[in-house]
Amino acid sequence: MTNDPSHRAVGLHCPRPLSTHDCVQMAHGGGGRLSEQLLAEVFLPAFDHPELARRHDGALLQVGGERLAFTTDSFVVRPLFFPGGDIGSLAVHGTVNDLCMCGARPLYLSASYILEEGFELAQLERIVASMAQAARAAEVSVVTGDTKVVDRGKGDGVYINTSGVGRVAPGIAIGPEYVQPGDVVLINGEIATHGIAIMSVREGLQFETELVSDSAALGSLVGQLLDCAGNQLHFLRDPTRGGVASACCELAQTAGVGIRLDERRIPVADPVRGACELLGLDPLYVANEGKAMAVVAPQLADRALEAMRQHPLGARAAVIGEVTDEHPHQVVLRSSIGTTRIVAMLSGEQLPRIC
Amino acid sequence: MTNDPSHRAVGLHCPRPLSTHDCVQMAHGGGGRLSEQLLAEVFLPAFDHPELARRHDGALLQVGGERLAFTTDSFVVRPLFFPGGDIGSLAVHGTVNDLCMCGARPLYLSASYILEEGFELAQLERIVASMAQAARAAEVSVVTGDTKVVDRGKGDGVYINTSGVGRVAPGIAIGPEYVQPGDVVLINGEIATHGIAIMSVREGLQFETELVSDSAALGSLVGQLLDCAGNQLHFLRDPTRGGVASACCELAQTAGVGIRLDERRIPVADPVRGACELLGLDPLYVANEGKAMAVVAPQLADRALEAMRQHPLGARAAVIGEVTDEHPHQVVLRSSIGTTRIVAMLSGEQLPRIC
Repeated sequence: MTNDPSHRAVGLHCPRPLSTHDCVQMAHGGGGRLSEQLLAEVFLPAFDHPELARRHDGALLQVGGERLAFTTDSFVVRPLFFPGGDIGSLAVHGTVNDLCMCGARPLYLSASYILEEGFELAQLERIVASMAQAARAAEVSVVTGDTKVVDRGKGDGVYINTSGVGRVAPGIAIGPEYVQPGDVVLINGEIATHGIAIMSVREGLQFETELVSDSAALGSLVGQLLDCAGNQLHFLRDPTRGGVASACCELAQTAGVGIRLDERRIPVADPVRGACELLGLDPLYVANEGKAMAVVAPQLADRALEAMRQHPLGARAAVIGEVTDEHPHQVVLRSSIGTTRIVAMLSGEQLPRIC
Repeated sequence: MTNDPSHRAVGLHCPRPLSTHDCVQMAHGGGGRLSEQLLAEVFLPAFDHPELARRHDGALLQVGGERLAFTTDSFVVRPLFFPGGDIGSLAVHGTVNDLCMCGARPLYLSASYILEEGFELAQLERIVASMAQAARAAEVSVVTGDTKVVDRGKGDGVYINTSGVGRVAPGIAIGPEYVQPGDVVLINGEIATHGIAIMSVREGLQFETELVSDSAALGSLVGQLLDCAGNQLHFLRDPTRGGVASACCELAQTAGVGIRLDERRIPVADPVRGACELLGLDPLYVANEGKAMAVVAPQLADRALEAMRQHPLGARAAVIGEVTDEHPHQVVLRSSIGTTRIVAMLSGEQLPRIC
């Protein structure tokens, strides 16, 4: 790894500050600095709502006597089908997981399709069947939907938006504002697998072992964590676009804390590590789906780790770092050779259209 | 008007049953027969949920002690800016109105953007500002969002999904299942204005009077209706794609009733009627946004009409028809020259990408 790994994969999409861009760049959708700037300079000032300003994966809303989580995601992944999933299962997992990261029990999804004229109906049926199966597995119901069609050439077969509603139980307090120095950062398994699986099929790369996306719904794993840690579970985040690095940077900035990561403890599957080396990618910046970072009070760390490991989606769970009051707003990585470096938010666009 | 006006505007997009299509047609997104078949043959069997099967504008959900409405819509309108609005205001009005049609008080919106690489940021800012203004006017908050970027050429600048959550007060019972023979059908004003305004700017048509979209949020108008009619307000529908004709056909089929419309009582502004004649379009099939059809018990019809007319968005409100137990599942129109004909659901695609 270099000293500034976020630049290694930038390629054609060289980032500049938003204010110097006149037009949308691929990196505005990459989950890194330009996405952050678009949020900060365009969306937050216009919509001016404290829930948006929390920059969490979804909004927490009080509706009458109920506390709800509400979230949305549009999916534009290419290719539509990949080892381990497709745009349909991904659209369910992504929104279910965003609800989970709010500490909510996911209940209901919407599904809205933008179809390209000429798209094969058989493919659409396959995607819809996959969504239905993923929704059943995640114990959520698709209850409302919409379909639009755009002209041939003005789409990529299908784009899918899912939005979701979940219920937050009393006493749950998850958000950047609850993160404290001394808290421990966990992850439920090997990172970068989803992103590298998509990348390898898109680029036609062949490895000895086929790389399969680990995209999954995390409702029951998060349920076990909540049962074990209760309100000592301070923060959850699925490190999708921009990877674990960008998720940690965003948390450090929003919560005003420092985060120390230990590279040796961050699990990466060997074939994924090999593919990353081949492609010149830092796994810390590769997108995930089916991974949750959890920040828990130190006295609960062992129990939380154990709860994760007892779940099928957490067998390779690990403690990967800690929250500190040193270097607030910054993420520092202790590398596998013992050096330390500052981890920056993804500054370009590593793998466009990964979700 | 001809005997089968739904065919008059079909043009290039000749409809066939879904089962004979291998690929997505523009008409699959047109709100007419092919949209209906896609729903019936693909989405309903896969997702298998009673709220979807109700085919209303949104889902009614019980979450703990609260009754919620939840709805979603993606917006792909061309052009992005048109007289009277833009894709941003339309995306707010469309979802707010779908919540209103469930009898809900709209509360929260999500906003998800699919941006095309190279889209001017200044245009995006203008659209976001318009959304924010429309949301403030409708007294809803945008609380969560998402942004994706697709490659140049794989979009049309921006597609927007808005989903919405609203609260349904106790005692409100709005849905096709409550519609009864004898009920009266009202509308809050002149139809077809939105569709013709978009069509005229898209086709570069010039009329003596500029045609301006009447797109608007209907929360306060529906609030007044609910205050006046309570649970005697049986059904609400915004006749968007497919127009008043298709909305009535869908209601007749879902509720198993007949509907009798009186063409002389259906308000159409003179310039819109003129444009329709010029373009060979039947206003009954032209998309609306900002119009609500209300079905009320006969004893409340006068009061409901008065309540609409007292509202700025209902000055030209009218009784346009009635529900009957004759000809169940069918809509019959008594024309301005005294003949009657059966009204079919839009069978092709009249004005693609109107919302």
